[in-house]
Amino acid sequence: MPSSSSHRSRAVASPWANPPEREQQREIKRQAVLAAAAQLFNERGFHATSLDDIARRLHVSKPTLYYYVKNKDEILLGCVRQGLDMMLVGIEDSRRAGGQAVDQLLTCMRVYAHIVTMDFGMCLIRVGDEQLPPESRRELRRLKSLIDHEFRRLVAAGVEEGSIAPCDPKMTAFVIAGALSWIGRWYQPEGEYTPEQVAEQCIATLCAGVLQRPAPK
Amino acid sequence: MPSSSSHRSRAVASPWANPPEREQQREIKRQAVLAAAAQLFNERGFHATSLDDIARRLHVSKPTLYYYVKNKDEILLGCVRQGLDMMLVGIEDSRRAGGQAVDQLLTCMRVYAHIVTMDFGMCLIRVGDEQLPPESRRELRRLKSLIDHEFRRLVAAGVEEGSIAPCDPKMTAFVIAGALSWIGRWYQPEGEYTPEQVAEQCIATLCAGVLQRPAPK
Repeated sequence: MPSSSSHRSRAVASPWANPPEREQQREIKRQAVLAAAAQLFNERGFHATSLDDIARRLHVSKPTLYYYVKNKDEILLGCVRQGLDMMLVGIEDSRRAGGQAVDQLLTCMRVYAHIVTMDFGMCLIRVGDEQLPPESRRELRRLKSLIDHEFRRLVAAGVEEGSIAPCDPKMTAFVIAGALSWIGRWYQPEGEYTPEQVAEQCIATLCAGVLQRPAPK
Repeated sequence: MPSSSSHRSRAVASPWANPPEREQQREIKRQAVLAAAAQLFNERGFHATSLDDIARRLHVSKPTLYYYVKNKDEILLGCVRQGLDMMLVGIEDSRRAGGQAVDQLLTCMRVYAHIVTMDFGMCLIRVGDEQLPPESRRELRRLKSLIDHEFRRLVAAGVEEGSIAPCDPKMTAFVIAGALSWIGRWYQPEGEYTPEQVAEQCIATLCAGVLQRPAPK
């Protein structure tokens, strides 16, 4: 028979999660809500998707959703911010890896192209921030402009180092961002190309140009 | 004093427009409604724009608008279709002008780039057809796919004639459409570039590629 002191030290195993575990589980479930919502927004559009649709896809009730998110605006903000955060992390990684500006630019292009084929990245391209209330919209535009400025900086540095053709870096950054963002509009996950094929072919076309180069004499 | 027969032949000049004139005036006014709406959709987004906003910009009452359009969906459809029709007319003109595929492709790229800097074309890019009811959406996607297929056809013909680098025409058409469509997202009519500068620089970058070409030996 245990002494009273050892009895005190052995806590009853609680069938409820402890607070840090609870927070973690809540976050996992919140992520599932965002992921299901991103898929639905991409399939049918933001306005045509209801909280009921999202709840149905997750086999839960609408009131359950309210434990994780406040409303549809908050969900969209969460989805789009996640897409942007993934891009910013990839860009930061490529910056830390260092090397020639042109190589960093190519890495950033691959990161960007890959993310727009994924649910959150696709949502960033398909839904657009006009749907969001002004404050969230401003925050997203700030994050987007960080990405844009990183592309411009790398293009300018590439021109400097002689690896990129002389150009207006702002315009070239827009051509790159446009061609790669468009992937998020047309890409079909079940279609004929893998995300890697799309990224490699689009980037190769952007790098080498559409026109046939004259054969070297 | 006129004879009774000449009196009969001289009709009283009506202060009301005759039916063909009335139809023409109605069409002019309907166009003004669409143009004002396109500007507002581009500035604040489709959902944030009300019929009241559109009426206010035209200094008329909301009931007056209903004489020209049924609802906001019809207005958006009208705007987007107008952008698409302008593109299709430009593409058809370039096809009729004939010549090398690469020259026809360049003309189509200029037409496309120019139209997305204009109100209706910008609306086509910024608003997106997810906002429209299924039937209108299908019709718009059909028109968009005509443009897409014309780009692919010209790219394939250019590869055939040796003016365009060997490629997957579908992917190259998407790179072109993406870079040029993006103009409709970032272009500011009051900004630092004219539409011609934007078109020429973006097209030059697409044609020659981003990378520096090695100097000829």
